[in-house]
Parts: sequence; structure tokens; C-alpha cells
Amino acid sequence: MYRVSVVKGQSRVSIQVEKNRKLWDVLLEHGIFLENFCNGHGTCGKCRVIVQPAREHHRLTGVERNFISEEEAQKGYRLACAVLVDEDMVVTVPERDREAVVLLSALYREVPLAPRVKKVKLWLKEPDLDDQRDDLKRLTDNLGSLKTGRDVICKLPGVLRENAFTVNAVIRKDELVDVVRPDRDGLYGMAVDIGTTTIAGYLVDLKTGKEVDVYSSLNPQRRLGADVISRINHEITTDRGREELRDLIVGEFNRMVSHFSRRNKVNRDDIYEITVVGNTTMMHMLAGIPADHIANAPYVPAYTRELEVKAREMGIDINPDGYVVMLPMVSGYIGADTVAAIMASGMYENSEVSLLLDIGTNGEIVLGNRERMVSCSAAAGPAFEGARITFGTGGVVGAISYVDLDSQEVYKTIGDEKPLGICGSGIVDVASELIKKGIVDETGRMKTAEELQGKLDSRLLKRIVEYNGQLAFVLDPQSGILVTQKDIRELQLAKGAIAAGMNILAKKLGLQWEDVRRVYLAGGFGNYIRVDSAVNIGLIPEVLKDKVVQLGNGAGMGARMALICDEYFKLASRIKDKVGYVELSGIPEFQTEFMDQMYF
Amino acid sequence: MYRVSVVKGQSRVSIQVEKNRKLWDVLLEHGIFLENFCNGHGTCGKCRVIVQPAREHHRLTGVERNFISEEEAQKGYRLACAVLVDEDMVVTVPERDREAVVLLSALYREVPLAPRVKKVKLWLKEPDLDDQRDDLKRLTDNLGSLKTGRDVICKLPGVLRENAFTVNAVIRKDELVDVVRPDRDGLYGMAVDIGTTTIAGYLVDLKTGKEVDVYSSLNPQRRLGADVISRINHEITTDRGREELRDLIVGEFNRMVSHFSRRNKVNRDDIYEITVVGNTTMMHMLAGIPADHIANAPYVPAYTRELEVKAREMGIDINPDGYVVMLPMVSGYIGADTVAAIMASGMYENSEVSLLLDIGTNGEIVLGNRERMVSCSAAAGPAFEGARITFGTGGVVGAISYVDLDSQEVYKTIGDEKPLGICGSGIVDVASELIKKGIVDETGRMKTAEELQGKLDSRLLKRIVEYNGQLAFVLDPQSGILVTQKDIRELQLAKGAIAAGMNILAKKLGLQWEDVRRVYLAGGFGNYIRVDSAVNIGLIPEVLKDKVVQLGNGAGMGARMALICDEYFKLASRIKDKVGYVELSGIPEFQTEFMDQMYF
Repeated sequence: MYRVSVVKGQSRVSIQVEKNRKLWDVLLEHGIFLENFCNGHGTCGKCRVIVQPAREHHRLTGVERNFISEEEAQKGYRLACAVLVDEDMVVTVPERDREAVVLLSALYREVPLAPRVKKVKLWLKEPDLDDQRDDLKRLTDNLGSLKTGRDVICKLPGVLRENAFTVNAVIRKDELVDVVRPDRDGLYGMAVDIGTTTIAGYLVDLKTGKEVDVYSSLNPQRRLGADVISRINHEITTDRGREELRDLIVGEFNRMVSHFSRRNKVNRDDIYEITVVGNTTMMHMLAGIPADHIANAPYVPAYTRELEVKAREMGIDINPDGYVVMLPMVSGYIGADTVAAIMASGMYENSEVSLLLDIGTNGEIVLGNRERMVSCSAAAGPAFEGARITFGTGGVVGAISYVDLDSQEVYKTIGDEKPLGICGSGIVDVASELIKKGIVDETGRMKTAEELQGKLDSRLLKRIVEYNGQLAFVLDPQSGILVTQKDIRELQLAKGAIAAGMNILAKKLGLQWEDVRRVYLAGGFGNYIRVDSAVNIGLIPEVLKDKVVQLGNGAGMGARMALICDEYFKLASRIKDKVGYVELSGIPEFQTEFMDQMYF
Repeated sequence: MYRVSVVKGQSRVSIQVEKNRKLWDVLLEHGIFLENFCNGHGTCGKCRVIVQPAREHHRLTGVERNFISEEEAQKGYRLACAVLVDEDMVVTVPERDREAVVLLSALYREVPLAPRVKKVKLWLKEPDLDDQRDDLKRLTDNLGSLKTGRDVICKLPGVLRENAFTVNAVIRKDELVDVVRPDRDGLYGMAVDIGTTTIAGYLVDLKTGKEVDVYSSLNPQRRLGADVISRINHEITTDRGREELRDLIVGEFNRMVSHFSRRNKVNRDDIYEITVVGNTTMMHMLAGIPADHIANAPYVPAYTRELEVKAREMGIDINPDGYVVMLPMVSGYIGADTVAAIMASGMYENSEVSLLLDIGTNGEIVLGNRERMVSCSAAAGPAFEGARITFGTGGVVGAISYVDLDSQEVYKTIGDEKPLGICGSGIVDVASELIKKGIVDETGRMKTAEELQGKLDSRLLKRIVEYNGQLAFVLDPQSGILVTQKDIRELQLAKGAIAAGMNILAKKLGLQWEDVRRVYLAGGFGNYIRVDSAVNIGLIPEVLKDKVVQLGNGAGMGARMALICDEYFKLASRIKDKVGYVELSGIPEFQTEFMDQMYF
């Protein structure tokens, strides 16, 4: 075992590593994400790290020479995907390299352990001339009527006789999916949340329901488009584009399986099921089903119901007779991830009304209770994800995520690193603060220094500057990071779309915001946002301020619930049926609402 | 169109043929089987015919030169598989070439038309912003809850939009198996009986239940062994032997599909189901499931129940989402063919007791009524199939199948051709006649000419000769075809096994033969045997003489019943459960019975 010390800004992590592990894998396993576009295949050159000691025998590989200069090599620069750990080392992640923060933890709910898959040990009588029952009947006479595929029947005669007719039968619902040696008693499942940008996976021991391991990575489809629309366009316009997109995501599933198997010494044939959630486009792309018509009005998906497909048919390397279980969706823009988050929130079983918000490029909004739920998807644009903002960035290390104009530092960054830019929750904070200080008025107009003269602390006044012909507010004079009038307008559009969607839903149900007892914020943005600021810019109604619960990765949690307990999988379909969908583009009053809600 | 006149011995058939058809295919389609081991692939050289006029431009192909001499070529000899019909021609099948007779006709039973597959035309509403139902839901809202595979969902968006949302949905049981253009309304199924030696297939229009076409061929697995035991040994002792055997039979299925499709102008994607029967070993080999343990005591098959597998998974080229439906079996030696024959006979629904006999290398015997049925398989050896008989032959053209010592001709052959040998029914006839004339006594001993002097017509007396140190009776002085003492002994063994099996079953049910109201003879041998002779040698009890029904190909008929009407498929499983199996080798008294029953 070697010790790898990872230094990133102020933080330092120490990891015990077996000999000859790939450094890239080691970092990924410990939640340290390096920017990359090739998932460790040595083709993008993005995963640069500094390795010390920079010994002579640490020669650059041929691949690395494409990306690292001789001078850099002498400083210890390497590609993490090309380094094998063969001694103790200190690995520094250079400042420029960003870490994707994937939210894995989630609100804990008690879920009964009742998976679809079980392993049953059988001591069978050996056949003789007085008992010539066929092998399958001999087995199933002890188990009741079970569907059985050809592949299991194929292996049955061998397994029975090699083990003197004592075997473990693996049963999933009403199907015999495997027969194995009596000493092979591992029983695992996986739950996966496919995001447009990130993928989070969980390995679960189905005998205990306990989470064994966690995996997260960037969705390799990114190279074909940053958002769902550009990926659908790729699918439509490219020969075999659909297969290409499917293969990318299936490949990532297989890396995840491989990772879980290797790191936890789990036989991949002992993994019998994967539950999957994701937005509607991702669910189509994983299954290789055309998502074409989701992109344009009337935004019709090919399917929305749950789907259970043999792992063999999906090309996913768990037990070939195991299943990939895809949770149901509501519509083209309310996916299985939202259904899962509804399940994780518990709002489907409460008599009181709850509001669920999952805000990203699209904001998914669900309002209702156990009687009735309605949902919509508001095209917020990418402002909440830091895109199209002058100094915007994703929720990465170094992103300004917190702003307080009364404090001396003014801002804080994720990981307390030197600032790289402003992420979604930072934008909300800035806007909130600028409004509080009167620098931005309720129409969103930024005031000039002249207008504010005498009304504002000179410390702040001097931060109001002109930038490319527009007004701007400087957050970090040293790096020059600032917020422009245009950035505020982008935020208004995003906030306006979400708030208008919320209002449409409330009207649909004839509710006042006072009637809502709980607000669940799901997803990464929802977990990092400062509730006060969200209220202050009018994203969340004032009356709901004290009712906010930050749910974490509700989608991933719902996927695990459906894995651990079949009742939750069935529940997902009932939730799908119960949730109405409101197409905002089909509602005339949406535009009016949208205009109204743009104001702060 | 050209005219092909086929001359075979006395018979002459005239066939209308399209230009450039392969002569091999043309003959096969018209039930004229040529000996062959390669199914028309030009590798065995067995399918020799004489083509006239033997024109100059009918040059031998390279392949043919391996098998046909220059001298033969001048006489018009060709390989049927190498000849294209490009003018009127006379084709003579040379005497030596034998025709396999496959029994396709069967007792007609009225079967309700209720197939598992149906096609439903749907005029769907096009989606808009007020009706964003996904494609699958839009379709199934009109059809009720249906399972749907990924492949169908994949093609759904395209088919719907290319046809302005008017489509034909193909539904099998509770599954949506296909969606096609509204003008594609063909709906076909196939029924196949896989024999160890021959394969018979039927193309059925599932909209009318009518038989559209018939196909028969030799089982290509023959090259790996003549009987099930030698094929199982091939499977056990050869690397990938199981795959090899499966691929041979699957290949033959695909030739059948291709033949049906081409000849009847049926789109193979419009064939949605194939029901299959066969003996237990064939059922295993088609499914690629190990048959290993059927060969040795305690003769345990891997499975016996019915199996429905997607055509795609089987590699069979009908609609990939269609199904191959394999009927259930009873035991290692009572197969799906016997279950199907029971179904075709109707014995399962009668209160009176019936006896079903399907005699080949193994004799399958079923006795009982709607309350209870028992079965056994008696290892008769190959005597009834003409093998191990000195001048034995299969049921081919030229086989002596009828013997009457009082007539002038003494014998008749199949097709009235010059005699080639004696087939199973001929052997039974000879034995019966020899017994009647006192030439063979009840112990089976053949008497010498001296012993018979004065007791026998001198015309017959001179036919008793010595042949290789044993007594023999000459059937055809010209060709020298005769029956030896050893042949009679072989017949005694075969007859003894069957009769002993029958007696064991009768005892099992506490029945006398008087209690049996009907005897069904199934299969080729059962259809050609002379009942009087079978009674005379003691194969069928005297009291049952007038109760015999020759059922024809009961197995193929049962397969068609299960195709046309789902109730019969379900019935097959109930029959399987109702039929008890008696393992003769496990019954001590079987040997005693067998010895007793060897006597005539």
C-alpha cells in the first residue's frame, strides 16, 4: 500500500492506495474530479496534476508528450490517467483544474428491505429411475411456478451436477434468473441517476439494503452537446447518432460496474439489477429509443412508462440475466428523476400541499399532495448553472457561491479557493445583495454611481464600474470578476420563468402560497442556494421562507428506494399517473405571468 | 414459365416452373425428395438426376464435375442443385435415388380460429400542445395495458409519423410485438414438427387458419448421427457440439422461412409465430439446451415445460419480435410430438380409453382417457424403420411395403418401383405371411424346406434357401431380396418391446384390451402398416383389430392446432401434466413381459 497525499488549494486528503493503481481511478474514487472529456482514456489531456517527487523514472508516456511540455514535466506535471501509483506521492491538483461537485448525500428515509431479487439455497434430491423429474421441475417444485429463460435452463444441468444438487437459486419477481454454486451468496444492485452533466451511481447490498459504494462521473455524452437539445440534434442529424449516444452512456455504466466490482471485490455476476432515473431525454438515450420529438413542439416522447430490460440486451455487464429497471416519466420535460425526487420527498403521501423545485437549465416544478399533483417545466435558461453569465461557472471548486456585501470579504468560494467565477447560487446571492443595497431596483435596472452617491457606502460605491458599455458591480477587484447589468437581466429571465411556472401551477390547483406546508429543493443548485437570497429575489415566495427543506439528490435517493423495495418501484408508476403535466408554452397567460415575475 | 416433366419409375409429374428456378428447389417444393446430405448446397453430390434434352449449353458446373463423369454427363446426368430451369425439360430421377416420404396429411379436426397474434388497425389522433401523450401511451390507450419491448418503442415514433398516425398494431397475448404501415396486413404463423430424420413445416394464414403451404426436408443434423443418442454423444464429446447441432436445425428453419416467403410472396416480417413439436432431444437441441443427461439413466432432461422465446433470440428469421413457441414434453423419451399427437387424436377428452402408438426406433405408447393417461417409450430398435434388416430400407420409393404370399406378385413396392429393399411395414407383412403359411413358428423359428415338404405349395417352398449360413425366404428372386432368420429375430425384439410396453401400461391402469375403444397409429410407419398383419404378428391385440385409426402426422397436426388456437397450446400443458410416465427400465417385470411378447 502506498500513501497518496492530494493537495488542492487549502485542502489536503490522504489516501491509501494499492500498488499500480491508476492515479486517475484513485482520485475519482475519492470524489476528486478532474476536468476531462475522455474519461481517463488519455485523449483529451485535461486531467493534469503535479506529482512529487518528480523522479527520473517518472518519464512521460507518449500520450502525455502531446499535452505536457518538457519544462512542465520537470515541475512534475503529468496526466492523472497516465500515472500508476508505485510509491508514496504528493499529488497537487493545479488551480486551473476544476472539480465537479456531485451531490450524493440525501435526506434519509426509512425504506423497508424488500428487493425484487432474492437468493434461495436449495438442497435437492438427486434424480433416479423412480424420480425422473427434469432438472428445471426438480428446482421449481421447491419454488412455485417461475418463468425461466433459455439461458438459465442451459446452465442448469451443469450447475446441479457440479454441486451435487445443492445450489443457490436467484429469483427476481416471478422469474428464475440464475442458478449458482451454493457458496456464491453475494446479492447486489445498483441505482443510477443520469444527469445531463453528471452521473451518480450507488452500489447496494441487497441482503442488507446498505449502500456499499458510491460512484460519480461526468456524462460522456457531453462531447456531443452540453444540453439535451443539442444531443437530440446530434441524434437527428448524425448517422447512427442514436447508437453513438447510447453507447457512450452504456460505456459509462460499464465503467461504473467495473469500478464497483474491482473496488469492493464484488463479482459482477452477483449484481442482478440496476434502477435508473434521469430526465426524459436521458432515459430515451440509455434505452436507445429515439428522443427526436422531445426537442420540438408538441414535445412528445416515444414512451414514458417504466421499462425493465435484460442487462444482456442493454449491453450492460452485470449478470446477463439481471435487469435494468428504468423508472417512469411524466412527460418530455418531467423525467424519471423528478418522479424519483417526488418519491424521496414523501410529498405524494402527505395530505398537506408541498412544492418541489429542481432548478437547472430547466426548472422542474411539482405542486400538490396525495390527492393531486401538477407539474411543469420552466425553461429557465442556463443562468442558474452559471452559463451565459459574464464570469459564470458551474458549481465547481473556486466558484463564488456566497455573497455578503456587509462582510469584509464580500464573497466566499466553494472549497475556499481563489475565485474562478460565479456559480448559480452566487448569482442569486449577488442579486439579492444588490437589491438590498438599492444598487439594483425592482425592475432590475442597475443604478449608476452618480445616482447612488451619498446613499451607498463608498467601499461599495467604488465597485460600480462600466464594463463593455454597461454598468457592472465588481466582486473581486484582484481577478476582475464582476456582475453586469446583462447578467442581472439573465437572472431575471430565469427567475421569471420559474416563478411564473410556480404561479401557473398554484392557480391550476386554486391554491395560495400560504396553503403550502413544505418546499423541497432538489438537485445540486437546490442544495447550495441560500434560501434567504432566493426569497429576496422573489424566486421563492416570502411566506414559504421557513418551510424550505433542502432534499439533496432526491433523484438518486428515489432510485435507491426503488432498488431496495419493490413497493417503491410500483409507487413510481402510481406517482407518474397521479402527476398532471402543464405545458407552459400552451398556456396564454404564461407570458403575462412571466413578464410580471421578472421584477424583483 | 417452363414445363418440367419429372419421371420416376412408372410415375410422371408435370410442373409449371418460373424461369431460372433451381431444379432442386422445384423438386423439393413438389414433394419429390432426392437423397442428399447437404440440403442443396452442392457438396454431397447425391441429388443426381437425368436432364433431357442434354443440350450443349448444359455444361457441368465445377461442383458437378466432382461427382459426374464425362460419360454420365453425355447421358444428361446433372446434380439437381446445380441446374437452373431455363427451358422445358424432362427430368428423370434415377432408380437408385430414393425419395423420403414425409407424412403431411392428417386427420382433420375442427379447430376454432383463435391465434395468439392479431393485427389491429388504429386511427390515432395526432399530438398537439393540448394532448402531449407519449407515442406508446397514445397507441396503447386504445388497446389496454400491453407489455412492450424496447425494439417496438424504438420504431414507434417513425412509423406513427410516416403514416399520419394510422397504423396496424400487432398484438400477441398481452404484448405489443410490432407496429406497421396500415396497408401491411399479412398475418402468418408456422407449425413445425422436427423429427430425428425428417422435418415437416406448415405455413398458416392466421387470419383464416388455412394452411397456405407445406415444406418438408431431411433433418440436417443427420450428418452428425442417425439417431438421438449419437447426436447427444456428438454434443457431449465435441467442442461447441451443442451450438453446431442447434445451428444446423436453426439453419433448416431459416431455409423453411425463406422457402415459404419466396414461394408465397409472404413478407417474412409478417410471420409472427412458429409452434414447434419434436422429440425431447430435438426440443433441447433447437433451444440450444444441453440434452446430455437424456442419453443415460436416469434419462433426465433439462426441462420439459413449454417455452416461448423471441425469434430474435433464437436466430430465426421471422419477425424478430415474433415468438418461437415450443410445446411441452412429458419426459426424456415422450416428447412434444407425442403431446401434440395426443392432442390431435382427441383421446384426452374421451371418457372411453384409447391407445396411441407412434412406432419408430422408439415406440411411444400412450394409454388412457380424459381422467388419466400413462405413457412409456419402448426401445424397439430400428427394425420397424428397416434398419438392421438384411435387405432393410426406410419408407422410400422402391421399398417393399406389402407382401401377400397368395398373390402372384408376392409383394408390392412404394411407388410401384423396382424393389430396393424391405421397409418396416413390409417386414411386418412378411412375418405375418410366413406365420400364416407355417414357415415361421410361434417361437419365431424358420422351418427348413425339408420340414415343410408336402405342407407348402412348391412355388413357395423353393423360396426357402440358405443365406450366409442361415435360413431365409426369398421375396424377389430377380434382385435376390430375401428375409433371413435373423431378420425375423430382429422383428421379434422390436415387436416384443412394444407389446411388453403396452401390457405394462394396461396393467398399470388395471385395464383389459377389451376396455380400449380406439387405437391411434401415428407417424409414417403407423400410417403405412397393414393392420391385419400387425395383429397377426401380435403387435396389436386381436380384440383391437377393428378399432384402429391411422392418424397420419399427429404431431404436425397438434402443432398446427396450437398455432391456430391458443386454447390448444394451453391444453398441451394440461396434457403434459396429466400424462404419467412409466420408465420401463425401472420396472422389473418388463423383462419377463418382453420375453413373453417376443413370441408370435
